[in-house]
Amino acid sequence: MKKSIGSETLAYPNPVWCVGSYDQEGKPNVMTIAWGGICCSKPAAVTISLRKATYTYGSIVERKAYTISVPSEKYVAEADYFGIASGKNTDKFKDTGLTPIRSEVVDAPYVNEFPLIIECKVIHSLEIGLHTQFIGEIMDIKVDEDAVNSKGHPIMEKIAPFVYGHGVREYWSLDKVIGRSFDIGRKYNK
Amino acid sequence: MKKSIGSETLAYPNPVWCVGSYDQEGKPNVMTIAWGGICCSKPAAVTISLRKATYTYGSIVERKAYTISVPSEKYVAEADYFGIASGKNTDKFKDTGLTPIRSEVVDAPYVNEFPLIIECKVIHSLEIGLHTQFIGEIMDIKVDEDAVNSKGHPIMEKIAPFVYGHGVREYWSLDKVIGRSFDIGRKYNK
Repeated sequence: MKKSIGSETLAYPNPVWCVGSYDQEGKPNVMTIAWGGICCSKPAAVTISLRKATYTYGSIVERKAYTISVPSEKYVAEADYFGIASGKNTDKFKDTGLTPIRSEVVDAPYVNEFPLIIECKVIHSLEIGLHTQFIGEIMDIKVDEDAVNSKGHPIMEKIAPFVYGHGVREYWSLDKVIGRSFDIGRKYNK
Repeated sequence: MKKSIGSETLAYPNPVWCVGSYDQEGKPNVMTIAWGGICCSKPAAVTISLRKATYTYGSIVERKAYTISVPSEKYVAEADYFGIASGKNTDKFKDTGLTPIRSEVVDAPYVNEFPLIIECKVIHSLEIGLHTQFIGEIMDIKVDEDAVNSKGHPIMEKIAPFVYGHGVREYWSLDKVIGRSFDIGRKYNK
């Protein structure tokens, strides 16, 4: 039997992505989000949703650009902090000792220590309610050299991303490959 | 050093969600997607992005409703099949032996064997390019009774969702809790 738990944002699992932006004075800032996802293949695009009250919101509206730095599991505390503190009151890069790097393709910084970087130019924004959704065209992706396979794809073990479970408020690491896509399901083909 | 790999949809990790809909004749269908995410807290809302060429696209346009059934890792083959076959040509529920249940709150079916169900009414749609993004207001969430904790939240171990890595085309299971949110990062608070 299933139990109804009402209208909640409990769609497990959620990504943990750190959104980089510059404020009006050019100070680099980074904020962790779990509300986002890929939304289109051509153009390659990814969404993030933010409350207007966040410091990052104003920066993205002004610069029309953001990066997503995907943290490895060893940076779980830093990523969590990026979701706790506000760039209005502190310099989160200095607080954690991590390094902001200016993107060469969009007007936003990324976190150098994180292995997978997605550089985005805002192409749409949509007011949904408490959150505003920004859709960013992916202009380039940068990956740590030792984390790219021979086909040019990021190696999951090297990226070591982790996921978030809202509700239980837990970060979970990844375990192992349990199947290959467009492959393991073929046994049901008639 | 980081290596540039161009404009690609390689934002790891992606969710694996099975989207349920009814076609014109009322036949239940289900399609796996990885392009989506929560996009708003109030109203609680979640996006899915689909190509117009999919059979599900027409069903959602007509019914203005969909469900997301979150598969447990033991259903990785079924979930993969739901992304391979088209409901235009086959009945994916019959093919896999899984059970469609009519949602009581939206005009769409869900997968009874999957532990976490999100029932959505379409409130926006946006043409981005190859993909159309649907934004669904979450009308209710249903969870297997034994997978809900005392606070009414889905228990991650019981849901056992898995994630997708595009590019490498791998499904990964979750391992363990590596931190609690709004908590493990507090050590950086000054």
